[in-house]
Formats: sequence, C-alpha cells, structure tokens
Amino acid sequence: MGKRIVVIGGVACGPKAAARVKRLDPEAEVTVIEKGDEISYGACGLPFYLEGEISDVGELTTTPVGVPRDVNFFRAVKGVEVKTGTEAVSIDRQKRIVKARRLVDGMEESLPYDKLVIATGSTPVRPPIPGIDAAGIHCLKTLEDGRAIRGAMEGSSTKKAVIVGGGLIGLECVEPLVKGGFEVHVVEKLPWLLPALLDEEMAIHLEKHLLSKGVMVHCGDGVASFDADGNGRVARVVTEKTSIEADLVILAIGVRPEIKLAQEAGLEVGKAGIVVDKHLRTSDPDIYAGGDCVASYNMVTGQPVYAPMGSVANKHGRVIGNNLAGWDSTFSGVCGTGICRIMGFNVARTGLTQRDAESQGLSVVSALNPGPDRPHYMEGSKLIHVKLVAESYSGRVLGVQILGPGEVMSRVDTVATLIKAGGTVDDLADVDMAYAPPFSPAVDNVIVAANIIQNKMDRVARSYSPAQVKKKLEAGEDFILLDVRTPKEVEAMSLPYENIVYIPLGKLRERADELPRDREIICLCKISLRGYEAERILVGKGFDPQLTSFLDGGIVAWPYEKNVK
Amino acid sequence: MGKRIVVIGGVACGPKAAARVKRLDPEAEVTVIEKGDEISYGACGLPFYLEGEISDVGELTTTPVGVPRDVNFFRAVKGVEVKTGTEAVSIDRQKRIVKARRLVDGMEESLPYDKLVIATGSTPVRPPIPGIDAAGIHCLKTLEDGRAIRGAMEGSSTKKAVIVGGGLIGLECVEPLVKGGFEVHVVEKLPWLLPALLDEEMAIHLEKHLLSKGVMVHCGDGVASFDADGNGRVARVVTEKTSIEADLVILAIGVRPEIKLAQEAGLEVGKAGIVVDKHLRTSDPDIYAGGDCVASYNMVTGQPVYAPMGSVANKHGRVIGNNLAGWDSTFSGVCGTGICRIMGFNVARTGLTQRDAESQGLSVVSALNPGPDRPHYMEGSKLIHVKLVAESYSGRVLGVQILGPGEVMSRVDTVATLIKAGGTVDDLADVDMAYAPPFSPAVDNVIVAANIIQNKMDRVARSYSPAQVKKKLEAGEDFILLDVRTPKEVEAMSLPYENIVYIPLGKLRERADELPRDREIICLCKISLRGYEAERILVGKGFDPQLTSFLDGGIVAWPYEKNVK
Repeated sequence: MGKRIVVIGGVACGPKAAARVKRLDPEAEVTVIEKGDEISYGACGLPFYLEGEISDVGELTTTPVGVPRDVNFFRAVKGVEVKTGTEAVSIDRQKRIVKARRLVDGMEESLPYDKLVIATGSTPVRPPIPGIDAAGIHCLKTLEDGRAIRGAMEGSSTKKAVIVGGGLIGLECVEPLVKGGFEVHVVEKLPWLLPALLDEEMAIHLEKHLLSKGVMVHCGDGVASFDADGNGRVARVVTEKTSIEADLVILAIGVRPEIKLAQEAGLEVGKAGIVVDKHLRTSDPDIYAGGDCVASYNMVTGQPVYAPMGSVANKHGRVIGNNLAGWDSTFSGVCGTGICRIMGFNVARTGLTQRDAESQGLSVVSALNPGPDRPHYMEGSKLIHVKLVAESYSGRVLGVQILGPGEVMSRVDTVATLIKAGGTVDDLADVDMAYAPPFSPAVDNVIVAANIIQNKMDRVARSYSPAQVKKKLEAGEDFILLDVRTPKEVEAMSLPYENIVYIPLGKLRERADELPRDREIICLCKISLRGYEAERILVGKGFDPQLTSFLDGGIVAWPYEKNVK
Repeated sequence: MGKRIVVIGGVACGPKAAARVKRLDPEAEVTVIEKGDEISYGACGLPFYLEGEISDVGELTTTPVGVPRDVNFFRAVKGVEVKTGTEAVSIDRQKRIVKARRLVDGMEESLPYDKLVIATGSTPVRPPIPGIDAAGIHCLKTLEDGRAIRGAMEGSSTKKAVIVGGGLIGLECVEPLVKGGFEVHVVEKLPWLLPALLDEEMAIHLEKHLLSKGVMVHCGDGVASFDADGNGRVARVVTEKTSIEADLVILAIGVRPEIKLAQEAGLEVGKAGIVVDKHLRTSDPDIYAGGDCVASYNMVTGQPVYAPMGSVANKHGRVIGNNLAGWDSTFSGVCGTGICRIMGFNVARTGLTQRDAESQGLSVVSALNPGPDRPHYMEGSKLIHVKLVAESYSGRVLGVQILGPGEVMSRVDTVATLIKAGGTVDDLADVDMAYAPPFSPAVDNVIVAANIIQNKMDRVARSYSPAQVKKKLEAGEDFILLDVRTPKEVEAMSLPYENIVYIPLGKLRERADELPRDREIICLCKISLRGYEAERILVGKGFDPQLTSFLDGGIVAWPYEKNVK
C-alpha cells in the first residue's frame, strides 16, 4: 500500500501538490478535501469575468482545451480522489487523522494520513462595520462571489458602486464596474492607492489617471457605516469624511490567512500565516502547508511576509509535491512582485518601496525616471514612470515601482530576477536586455534608473525628490528652481511657483553667470536628463556642488500642481 | 589645460563617451570626428522609417523634445566639438596624433590626443557577387541608405523586392516592403531564418508565419548574381536554385567591424573586432574602443563574440566616458540578446541556442514549451513558443528562444538577467515574476520550461525533440505515437503518420493495458503537458521507463507536416 496523503484545500496549491506527488509516486493514495463545490479554479480571473472578458465563469475551472477540472477529471487523469463540499474539522496529529464533515448532510469521517498538506487559503477581511451585513455588499474571492457580483451589477438600479479598499483586488474591480456603466468610488483608508505596493509620489500618478477617467477616489478616508434601504439593501456608504450613494459595494480590504485549523492543531503560526521552513514543512514534520495560508519568506528583508498570490501558491504546490514524494525540494521565497492594469494604466512593483526600506532601517538611494517605453520617434511609444530603490552603501537593488500607460512587465521581471540574485545597480546597468525600437529604447528605462543611482552614489549627481522640493517650497526656503527646457515646452506646461528661472539648456553655458553663486539652485527639465546635465554644467563652471542639484524625474514626475496648457 | 580627448566616430558609442567624460571632467577638451554628415542618430530606427512609422528621417537625429543633435547642440549643451564630414586617416601612437581629412576639400589636420576613443562602427558586408553594383541594390546602415531605399520604394515599377539575408536587419525590412505593396522574397544562404539567433525547430515557426503572410522565403539558397536591365538597374536576382524578378534589393548579409584604422595603427584585432579588456581599453592603454567595431565578451561562453547592437554601444560609451575621466569602470559583456517583430510575430532570444551550446562542446538539456502568454481564459491571450536550453550536469541556464504572436520581451529579459547572474533552472523556477491575468499565466511560460528541464534532470520526464522523432519516423523505427488528446482536438489537427494510437488522457488509466509493453511509446498531446502526464501514468503502471517518453512541445511545437482541418 502506498503512502496516504491528505490535502486540505482544493483551489491552487492543494491540487497542484496532489497532482505532483501522484506523478512522482504513483503508489501514493492522495485525497483532497475542499469545502466549496468547485476545485482547482483560476480565482485571479474573477475580475475579468466581471468585466465580460470571460463570458462563462466555468472557463475558470477548465483546462486550456476545455476539459472541466472536476472530481472526475482528478480521478481519471491525476489519479487523485477529491471530496468537494467537505470541510476539515480538526487534525489529530497524534493519531495522524483529519476529521472531515460533509456539508450537505453533516456526515463526519476520519481520514488517516501519513503526510498532510494544509492549503486552506485565505478569507477576505470583513470588519465589524455597522451595516456590513446589508444585501449588496460583496467580497470577491470565490466563483460564487463572482456570480453574485455579476448578478448585482445587472440588478443595480442606481448604477452607483463603492469599492472599499484601494489595493490590487479593489482596483481590478474598477474597470468592470466602469464598463458596466457604474459611477465608481474607491475608498482607501490609507493616504494613497496601492499603499502596500507604491510610494506616495508614484501612487499620485495612478490616482490622477483614475480621476481623469471619471473614477472618484477617496484616499485617507475610512468607512464608518453602511446604510441600508427598507429592503435591507445597501443604499449609502458613510465614510469619515463624506457619504456616497451606492447599491453595490465591493469589500476589498484585504485577505487573511486561513489558519484556524492549523492553530487548533497546535502548529506554529505567526502574524503572516502558518510558519513553514524552506521545504514548506510546518512545525510538525509530517505536515506541509502552502499557498495563501502560510507566511512567505521575503528574500529582500529576510523576514516573513504575507504574499497571497496565485503564482506563489502554484510554486508552493510543486515544492510540496516533491517533498511528499520524498525529494528534497525548497522554495527560495518571494520579493513581493505585483502587477495590475487599471483602465489602460499599468502598475507593477517588486521588492521594497522606499518607505518599506526606510521602515526597515535601511539607508536608501532612489531614482525617478519617467520616459517613453520605446524610442520617442516610434509612434506607439508610451510613458512609464520608474522609481528604482537601492541600498546607498552597497548599491544592492531593493525594489522598483513602474507605472503608466506603457509596458511595465519586462522591466519589473528584470528587476525581480536581479533581486533574487542579490544584484546591485552596477549589475542592473549591465544586463543585456532585449532592444529593438518596437519594444524598448536602446538604453532601457530601468537601466537609465540604475545609471542615475550610480551617478548619485558616485556623487556626480545630487537631487531632491518631488516631496523634498515641495516641502522646501512650503517652508518658504530661499532657492532657485532652474528650468532648462525650451520656451515652447515651458509654454505648454510649467510649475506654478515664484522662484523659477528659465534658461534653456543650450544657452546655459553662456548664460550661467546670470545665476547667483551663493543660493541653492535646483535644476529641472521634462524628465531631469537635462536637469542633470545642467547641474553638471554649473558645477563645471565652479558653482558650489553642495548648492547645485536637480529635481528627480523633472516636471513629468512632479505629482503636485502644474500649469498645463 | 584639460586632457585632450579625441573620439573617432559620431553615431552611438562615440558621442555617448564624449558627453559622459565631459560631464565628469568639465576641463576635458573633447573632439569627435565623424565621416558622415549626421551624428548621434538612432540607426536602429531605420526600418521603421521605411515603414512610415517615423515620417521624417530627421526624427532619428533629434532629442525626445525635438532638439536636433547636431554640431551646435553638442557644442552648446555637451561642450563637445564635433567635426562632421571628417575622416580619420591614421593614428600615430608614438606622437599621439590622429590625422584627419575633411572630405569636402581634402584638407588634412592633425589632432593631438592624450586619450583616444575608436568608435568606428561597422560596415555592411558586400560580397563580390556579379552585378552587385547595379542600381537598386541597397544596404540599410545610414540615414542616407534609409532615404535611398525609401526613394527606391516609391520609384519601383515592378513592386518586387528581394531581401538578401534572413537575419535581424533583413527581416525588419520585410514589413515595410509588404506594407509598401511589394512582393517580397527573402533569400537566406543557411538552412533557416535567423540562423544566428534560433535553432531550426524554432525558426520553422517563423518561416511558416511569413509564408502565411505571402512572403516568399528561400532558405538554404545563395545569390549567384544580380542581373541588370539596360539602364544598369537590377532586374533579377539569380540564386543557386531559382531566379527572382525584382527592381529593389536590400542586402542584409551582416555587418563587419570597421577595424582598418586600428589595424594600421598596430592595435590588437581579432576575428570579432578590435580586442579590448573589460575597461574597453585596447592593447594601447591610451586608446579605448567600443560599439560595433570591437569584440564583445560573451558571458555564457567566456569567448569573444561580435555583438553589433545599439544597446551595447550605448553601454560601452558610458564605461569609456567613465574611464576617460580617470574612473575604474568595467563592462561585464553580453549574452547575445536579440528581439524583433515581423508582421505581428515576435522573436526573441538570449544566451546560446542548442546548436551554439553543442558546438561549444557543452552537454545540453532543453525544453519546448508552447503555450498562451496569458491564462487561456483571457480573450487576448496569444501563443508563444519557448525553447529553454540548460547545461545538463549543473542546470545552468544557457539560453532561451521565444517566438510567436504573444508577449516575448519580459520572458527574454528575465532569462537574460538570470544568465548574467549565472542562475540555474532551479533559480529560474523560483523567480518571483509578475503575475496577473492581463499579463501572464500564474506559472509563467519560462518557469514552466524550467520545470520541464528540472523534470528531465530529475529523470521523471523523458522526451524526444520533434527533430529526433522525425528522424525515427524517417528511419522507419518501430514505435508508437500515443496521442492522448480529446477526439475533438484530434479531428481538428493530427499528425499524418501510421503508427499513432489514440487514447484520451482521461481513459488512459483504465485502457493502458491495450498498449504493448515491449515497444517504445512516445506520448503527445497539444503542448505535451498531457503527454508528460501520460508518460507518468504509464510508468506508474509498470511500463518500462526506458521505452516510455513524450514528444517535446506536443503537436503545437511540431514544425513538420500536420493534417489541419
């Protein structure tokens, strides 16, 4: 008789682990139990089902050739028994038995195991806000949720919706609602969108984009209560600052690891989920855990992190399957990569934001580089903003944020790969990235960002971030903003401040003497390539390097007020 | 007085090095001499000028905000003197003098230097084929060439063109000509397209794509002569196998490093160009060289390689600029990354092909993984073929080829970054690549390819490449092709061979006994995910692992004959 393996959880990590061990060890007797009625589905596709890009939610449960991944499929193809509608009630680690209950009739059964896998996933956070149980307030987690929201969208009479939570899932719901004809509000308690992914100076560009598309964004505002109408249906979302009419609410405040079973069984559990080692083994060597219920290892910080991503869950499943078969397989951790597309605007990041890094006590150097994703002469080129963050002593790359209408994935994947290898900005600057005009500029955007950080580390570039300059302006500090763009550019867009001097870069060498040598000068242009050049020209002409700098990212990266013609 | 720096060559590496050193060392006196009339232009954009995506060739010589990068720009902005229309005639290393000649009047002058940069670029190969000097036969290298070809396209009476050379530049010219209404023939002497970038089994997919778009492809055929009409204009291209009418010919056989000056000055020169160390210093410590005229270091093979790419030239320029300023800056080499888009079909590769690797004497394991670039349930998902190549002992990733209508850049950049870090397939499998359904599948295509190689190295997967199976078929070997797809799939597409047995994967566990245990069985499905599953099922049922395998990449990757409905 083969090894008895029980897997609790049938969405991503569980079925993957089950199928994998069965391929490696055909003798193994593998049983998967799943509380829901459906298994092995692509939950990440749900927002696109809402959007109509996927016509039938059932497509999320089929193989690429249209075969349903159901109980029969798992039995016939994978040789794995699956019990749906069956909840794991408890784990007896002494006797190595899982007690399970069939939801339809309450029948209990005992499943003995030699090895156990906990892949219980996550649960959406549903805080005890007054009125939260009104009809029309949905989370988006299961296929059932997807069907319910799609029904609610069709049945909505006001066509007004509020998304509570400006994280990835919340923002992925924006476009489906807008396309569905809804007036959409996003309420985010923290001061900016995607607070877990982006620094504020980057997130503002996303917020501006959403506003330009007619989406109402309420950052730094929390929900106080949900008001229902006479039929118990949500009619209004009352926040700390305002009140918004809506008959459809999507709650996307985040998810929590489903740890109850593990905790009750006495397994070690931390803040970020069930504690596992690099073999994805829990504190009990016969029990593995993976997917959304475990704490991941962050390879940048070396600390546990919660990373509930479908890509991670799949990797976990494979490693667990290997180890169940007696192999010695490990998972090297995550670096917090995330990507999304919202109304034609792409956002990606990997590693740490500047804020993350500084809160870890790291000393940081960063660069803002807004620029076209392909050579400017190509008609299809589109803007992307890059913010690269590195350790200021070693140059080790800590993270990157990339956003805008242009291409972001290749750049974030490049940096994610580099971070895994422990690379520095010098390494990044030398990566042989693919180049051809339909795809990328000759010097890729992230390589330019690495070059900027090299210049800063080598002390041939000194800069202020937009936030720093904004603060200096507000404090009424005495300095000059030297705008070196052409008159035509200045006419089209300018900064609305008093302390600006205009000298086009081409005239700066001859006109530098017009500038005072005893006041601070911050140079800027469109993206600060010329701003940097201006800094070098002034320093070359004997201006005090300590008083000469440029504005990181120029006027394009400036997220605050601008005069635009 | 500052250091005197002379730079020979004003297109990519030269101006970059000149501007960089001037930023770091404002005292330096920097002079660039350039034979042509234009400087610092984006030569890589020329095919897109032909295509009309760039309306004015002048756009290739301006900055992103439209300022011409001309002699005045370099003087005013960069503080660099540029002499166009000026050819370097010789280098006197003893006296440290470059002798230059003004082309317009033959005036010679001597330019003394403390440090010299050779950035003479490359010259298109123009073999002594009979008739090659006929009118209408063009290379595509300079802005002048671009203007001439565009003129020739407009003036063509037959609208028939031949591109000689199926490399990157030749293929980039296909789309402009097709869009211009031309009947296009591509003649490539080697047996497949992009022979320097792709293995044959991958290149066939590209060839099929071009044929489907009406482009005539003649691989394994060389040009014997060009026949001219009575006016000395090309009228016909005679190849070894056929004869093609055409009044426009683009010669894109390749480029050669421009080494004459360096050679005559007694500098060390190898087959792949001027020899430089990692500081990009030639055999004379006062002379640097970079861009298309030097031999690059291939970081995979450790050998010199010729890599005439705009991206590399720009990196060289920065490193040389640093070293001219007295810094200690190095370039870590290339891994042969290339990318192009041809009539909606993307092709990318980095590192070594299987053929490259085997010709280096390396022992290789590879995987073919054709699949959608996003989850299959997303409407916009498109096919890409991945071929990953690794060292079979260590798992070190040696290279990847990716092609198809889908997204290729993020995948090739990921592998290029990994190769630079010396990563293995285990490392690749663990990269935290960006995942969201509008961008990529939960397990990215290159990670799946890494998983397949892991399985092969761990001996739980055995496969044959399409070429190997084809050879076995042709040799009349006795084996079974076990097609485990659904009847509907088989009806739509099948392999036209006698030795096929059909058992859908879902029936294989119960029907396995219908198969003989003493004959070789090669399983296949659409992409060989199920083919691999079938192999595991049979081995699990006691079939001889030495007689059981799958067809790499399944029927989708099969580049030979197929019955398609």
